[in-house]
Amino acid sequence: MAENLKEAGGLKEAGGKVRLYVTAPLGGDATVAPDEGQAHYLLHVMRAKAGDRVALFNGRDGEWLAELAEVKKRAVTLRCLKQTAAQTGVPDLWLAFAPIKKTPSDYLVQKAAELGVRALLPVFTRRTIVTRINRERMTANVVEAAEQSARLDVPDVREGVSLDRLLADWPQDRRLYFCDEGGDAVPLADAARGHTGPTAILTGPEGGFDPAERAALRERAFVTPVTLGPRILRADTAALAALAIWQSVAGDWV
Amino acid sequence: MAENLKEAGGLKEAGGKVRLYVTAPLGGDATVAPDEGQAHYLLHVMRAKAGDRVALFNGRDGEWLAELAEVKKRAVTLRCLKQTAAQTGVPDLWLAFAPIKKTPSDYLVQKAAELGVRALLPVFTRRTIVTRINRERMTANVVEAAEQSARLDVPDVREGVSLDRLLADWPQDRRLYFCDEGGDAVPLADAARGHTGPTAILTGPEGGFDPAERAALRERAFVTPVTLGPRILRADTAALAALAIWQSVAGDWV
Repeated sequence: MAENLKEAGGLKEAGGKVRLYVTAPLGGDATVAPDEGQAHYLLHVMRAKAGDRVALFNGRDGEWLAELAEVKKRAVTLRCLKQTAAQTGVPDLWLAFAPIKKTPSDYLVQKAAELGVRALLPVFTRRTIVTRINRERMTANVVEAAEQSARLDVPDVREGVSLDRLLADWPQDRRLYFCDEGGDAVPLADAARGHTGPTAILTGPEGGFDPAERAALRERAFVTPVTLGPRILRADTAALAALAIWQSVAGDWV
Repeated sequence: MAENLKEAGGLKEAGGKVRLYVTAPLGGDATVAPDEGQAHYLLHVMRAKAGDRVALFNGRDGEWLAELAEVKKRAVTLRCLKQTAAQTGVPDLWLAFAPIKKTPSDYLVQKAAELGVRALLPVFTRRTIVTRINRERMTANVVEAAEQSARLDVPDVREGVSLDRLLADWPQDRRLYFCDEGGDAVPLADAARGHTGPTAILTGPEGGFDPAERAALRERAFVTPVTLGPRILRADTAALAALAIWQSVAGDWV
């Protein structure tokens, strides 16, 4: 990978230029102090020097080319040079999912960010085995995925709620595609094709939804039960497959 | 999960009954000796006893209900009782993929098996960093995924080959969707919708295909370059997204 690391003053990592998500405003001559982890990454992993260039985004101001203006042992200042992309967003797609154990959960939230979800909503169902979620860890995962996938925003990681609470508080104008292993649902591609407007996908835990949960979901007007084919998918596979299919028939991959 | 473990004489694990892939013929009164790992799993993980029931499949004879006929300390014999499903296959879909490092590669082959590929073809490209594949490990992963996903067959894991060799030996009647990050390709869902016949999806390594490889692919009549949306996907995400989309517009999820 050596040939990818540094080229023409721009710091590169495998797959492209170094991109960092920051919270500070970006604009002409703005200076930004990256957080401690980012400073460590720039100085000690990428061995950046004054004058090296990176890309910055904050979810509001587009993407900016910035240069390392000031480099100290543990801190660095970045100065914005020019806007390289106007701000764009992702489709209005949420993923509501029953949290799963740590490694598959890390994988799931990273992939969901790459696949272009706007928000991640952990949902506790009756058969969910995981009892707590680590929202900080999930946020770190989605930030990293956003940086690597060339997104200009970062998905919003919500607090975990019970399925009852999720349904009670649901915004009625947001279509909820419920991935149902129960049999008589229509394929997601058929249900979603050409649909516009706020959308969410709901996937269950390893053991699926229980019958009372399935009934409660099916009686809501905003819910459409959908199927993901004849095989049994793991929880994370189902979520990723559903996101990719939705993007390809109704999202920004069309 | 305790309530899932044993019910009514059938060994259960999370998500359903224990299913084992075997190579021996299955049929009325056939007896099968599971391999050492399966015997260990049955006896020491599931604590199976004589009379307990499992499901067996071998890729040819459908699914059979079987009972533990003879149980010794390290070995067990299974006797077929009745066929519970006729043999079915998956669509004629291959995944040709540049191998990636160990953990994402394990994940990729498991998910590909769940998503219903018939064969997995590791392909070495110019930017592929991994230089060897562990075919035995990949096979163990796809067997486990087939058992858990209710498949009645196991994907074929091929020997790794160079991209040049792959293209030189390619069966001309098999459409190859090449996931191209280069820009002007059509969305996979549009290219594949309603297409029938032998198909394969090709995904690259983390750094993508190099320009000479892209050109070589594009000049083949059997290749269709396709895009997977505006964001940069990791290699494994791209492969899984492409498989799910293909299944939903041209495979057995339609």
